[in-house]
Amino acid sequence: MARLYHVPLSPFCRKVRLVLAEKKIEVELVEERYWEQDPDFLRRNPAAKVPVLKIDGKTMAESSAILEWLEEKYPEPALMPKGADARYEVRRLMGWFDDKFHTEVTSKLLYERVNKKITGEGFPDSKNVKAGAKAIKYHLDYMAWLLDHRRWLAGDVMTVADFTAAAHLSALDYISDVDWNRSEVVKDWYAKIKSRPAFRSILADQVPGFPPPRHYNDLDF
Amino acid sequence: MARLYHVPLSPFCRKVRLVLAEKKIEVELVEERYWEQDPDFLRRNPAAKVPVLKIDGKTMAESSAILEWLEEKYPEPALMPKGADARYEVRRLMGWFDDKFHTEVTSKLLYERVNKKITGEGFPDSKNVKAGAKAIKYHLDYMAWLLDHRRWLAGDVMTVADFTAAAHLSALDYISDVDWNRSEVVKDWYAKIKSRPAFRSILADQVPGFPPPRHYNDLDF
Repeated sequence: MARLYHVPLSPFCRKVRLVLAEKKIEVELVEERYWEQDPDFLRRNPAAKVPVLKIDGKTMAESSAILEWLEEKYPEPALMPKGADARYEVRRLMGWFDDKFHTEVTSKLLYERVNKKITGEGFPDSKNVKAGAKAIKYHLDYMAWLLDHRRWLAGDVMTVADFTAAAHLSALDYISDVDWNRSEVVKDWYAKIKSRPAFRSILADQVPGFPPPRHYNDLDF
Repeated sequence: MARLYHVPLSPFCRKVRLVLAEKKIEVELVEERYWEQDPDFLRRNPAAKVPVLKIDGKTMAESSAILEWLEEKYPEPALMPKGADARYEVRRLMGWFDDKFHTEVTSKLLYERVNKKITGEGFPDSKNVKAGAKAIKYHLDYMAWLLDHRRWLAGDVMTVADFTAAAHLSALDYISDVDWNRSEVVKDWYAKIKSRPAFRSILADQVPGFPPPRHYNDLDF
């Protein structure tokens, strides 16, 4: 069986978990305290990051490279559209969330509030938290603008771009940092993706010391 | 003709320039002071980053998404290998350089020494410069370890992974931050890639206030 070394709230791990589940690939989840730099783990991934996926005799790191590999090796159900232009838009949005959204929002809210405590780096920096809380509004508005024109984020079909965005938002939702009242279309999009069977494992996550809010795993939030 | 909005020393722009040149796609280069957030530029790319490529009636951002699009639309000469496993290794290394190397080295050396001055953010933070100078040694050793087993970084053929790595290293070489004496195989690899016609435009770059060292555009460095 495939094995994923992960951290429950990491958006990069969550996007791999979601895509594995959509493609009905069974996986054993192993929590990895990557910040402790265990030598065995460093052997698996010299970049010392999660996720690390063991599958088909391979050990792989870098979440976006993993998703492209999964799409090529396990093409059903397709989570990438046909056509270079449509595929570009999916990859652009993956970059948007994993780079821009991650820098401006995820690292400023999730990493300040949760990761710093878990890894023993201290208390949240309120300046960062404030900046993240401000930035997420613009990002939700950008998503709303996209979803006003499209059924899914990158076009008319559901793709890995949706799972990438949902991976970040679900982790922030776990700490109540997403204002779902800001946009009806964004809330509808999240409700659709949250109700997929692939989302169940994510909604069952529990991080010691950080109980999720009641709405977190409520499909009717 | 295609047009690229860029900054000369940006590794993300350089990798797009290199791939365009390898594929013999003519491009007009337009320098973009993206940090000034000019409204016209923000309309082209709401992420306010370079590179932005206008080609075939499209306006595109996110360098890795652009490279994948170029490979699909302009497949000759191929800069991605065949086979999911080989392609995974290329994408893993692109992630390695654009994320890990960028965070640990490029942002600590190039951005401290050059970008801060150009964008008016002040002086280099010597703690960051020291950390970057230390980290680049490990990265050069990792490249040496890869190149001991392989002709090119991701395997036996030249790929976008080589151009991604060369984009970062060439920008750091412009400010004399690469110790080419550290590894013979890395130096040989860079000499091979530096002597390609696609590299000429990069070697001709001149940033006002930062004259390149003499060895920078010397093919026999």
